[in-house]
Amino acid sequence: MKLAVIGVGLIGGSFALALKKAGAVSRVVGIGRTPANLKLALERGIIDSTASDAGDADLVLIAAPVGQYPGILASLSSSKAIITDAGSTKRGVIAAARQKLKGNLSRFVPAHPIAGAEKSGAAAASADLFRDRRVVLTPIKESDHGAVSQVESLWEACGARVSRMTAKEHDAVLAAVSHLPHLLAYGLVHEVAGRKNSEQLFSFAAGGFRDFTRIASSHPEMWRDICLANQDLLLDEVSRFSKKLLSVKKTLERGNGDALEKLFAEARRARDRWLKSSS
Amino acid sequence: MKLAVIGVGLIGGSFALALKKAGAVSRVVGIGRTPANLKLALERGIIDSTASDAGDADLVLIAAPVGQYPGILASLSSSKAIITDAGSTKRGVIAAARQKLKGNLSRFVPAHPIAGAEKSGAAAASADLFRDRRVVLTPIKESDHGAVSQVESLWEACGARVSRMTAKEHDAVLAAVSHLPHLLAYGLVHEVAGRKNSEQLFSFAAGGFRDFTRIASSHPEMWRDICLANQDLLLDEVSRFSKKLLSVKKTLERGNGDALEKLFAEARRARDRWLKSSS
Repeated sequence: MKLAVIGVGLIGGSFALALKKAGAVSRVVGIGRTPANLKLALERGIIDSTASDAGDADLVLIAAPVGQYPGILASLSSSKAIITDAGSTKRGVIAAARQKLKGNLSRFVPAHPIAGAEKSGAAAASADLFRDRRVVLTPIKESDHGAVSQVESLWEACGARVSRMTAKEHDAVLAAVSHLPHLLAYGLVHEVAGRKNSEQLFSFAAGGFRDFTRIASSHPEMWRDICLANQDLLLDEVSRFSKKLLSVKKTLERGNGDALEKLFAEARRARDRWLKSSS
Repeated sequence: MKLAVIGVGLIGGSFALALKKAGAVSRVVGIGRTPANLKLALERGIIDSTASDAGDADLVLIAAPVGQYPGILASLSSSKAIITDAGSTKRGVIAAARQKLKGNLSRFVPAHPIAGAEKSGAAAASADLFRDRRVVLTPIKESDHGAVSQVESLWEACGARVSRMTAKEHDAVLAAVSHLPHLLAYGLVHEVAGRKNSEQLFSFAAGGFRDFTRIASSHPEMWRDICLANQDLLLDEVSRFSKKLLSVKKTLERGNGDALEKLFAEARRARDRWLKSSS
């Protein structure tokens, strides 16, 4: 099987490496905007050649910022390949596919591997990135069942735990546990960085701040596109969180130590329960 | 030199281990509320004995939640020891010391090792916890210079980088880079945990969420006390951040991708610069 990867970064490169390791693909062609990154992908054996389009590939993975999808999907409207993607939002991707893929829509299997990192590019790709990670497929009514099963098997070959959801459900879940935290981390770092004494503030920031803001080192263009594509559901989350913050603020204003301790203890218990169940 | 540690947890236990390793103390007595924790501290060789008060110690470290300080300080009003502490807020600690230490105030050296973790108790203590970490001393006008120098030397013997600030300056800096992030992380986890579909939400949360919320597994009582002790400056930070969040929200509502990308890129650059300068 010949795989074409559009966007040979952390996700696209890791998919190629994992499928090569599993013996599921024989040849990988890489398509991308950055010659230096493609060169590195060749050197690392992630891809076997580069091209300007997917050509006669059997499977195409789109692993580019979702803002680039319309152009990419248009270029695939007459491809014979099964097409899947790794976009972090799914409703916008599906809308673009309906518009651009035309007769090819049935071969499109929208997917999202939940395995991002603040590192990006072919340099960060790894054959084990998806091991025990979740991948969500959001097939649509037009999706060919065979194509969906094949994409599911390939993600499983990467070691991932695959589940299915509607695109709306996916976007709502990710808005809460991924997109909102990114926005908060970017916002906090930007707030601190904009102060007169920012150098002093950063110099006394410790491990808690470093981990809390790790995701603020994520790829700005990718996150711009995610925010725009999931605008409505992300705005809902921002509103919910703002209400929560206001309620915490009022508790603090009243100096209600019991209520603060209760909230902290409940949060800690919930987080510890989650860590236990996911380990 | 004989050291008494009041609160033999992560910080108090690590201070004892580090000073023993450096050969700076010959004997450590542990004072605490939890017999099982003191027993573990004895077994691990962190302390050599337990007691109900500091007795004839030469140096006392208070490493308990700041809410317990008034009682602890009152018990030290006739001690002959140099007294220092590890409280995460300093204005409230100093106010309590003025009230309770009386004639002993000159021997009190308020300090804050910036080396917390979400782990707590003697089990988490380590001789290397303070290596290359910052410790802030906030001496007051009554502080004896010899006592301040001695405490400074002891923290340096633990491998820490010691600096001095006023208590107000310390509390303002920590409100921004430590207390606010804790409040945000606790708030987010509590928000997610309170939803009907919280189990689904947690089950699709990944590494970004885990790191962002790591500090929400911190000690609830300790963080209740910190929030109450630094209430005014922490409320200032909550207000600042709420304004920032509102501005990000408006940018998102307008669908202004350029402004979002600019903010994300500036935050990433600031964070990466900080990581580089602190490594």
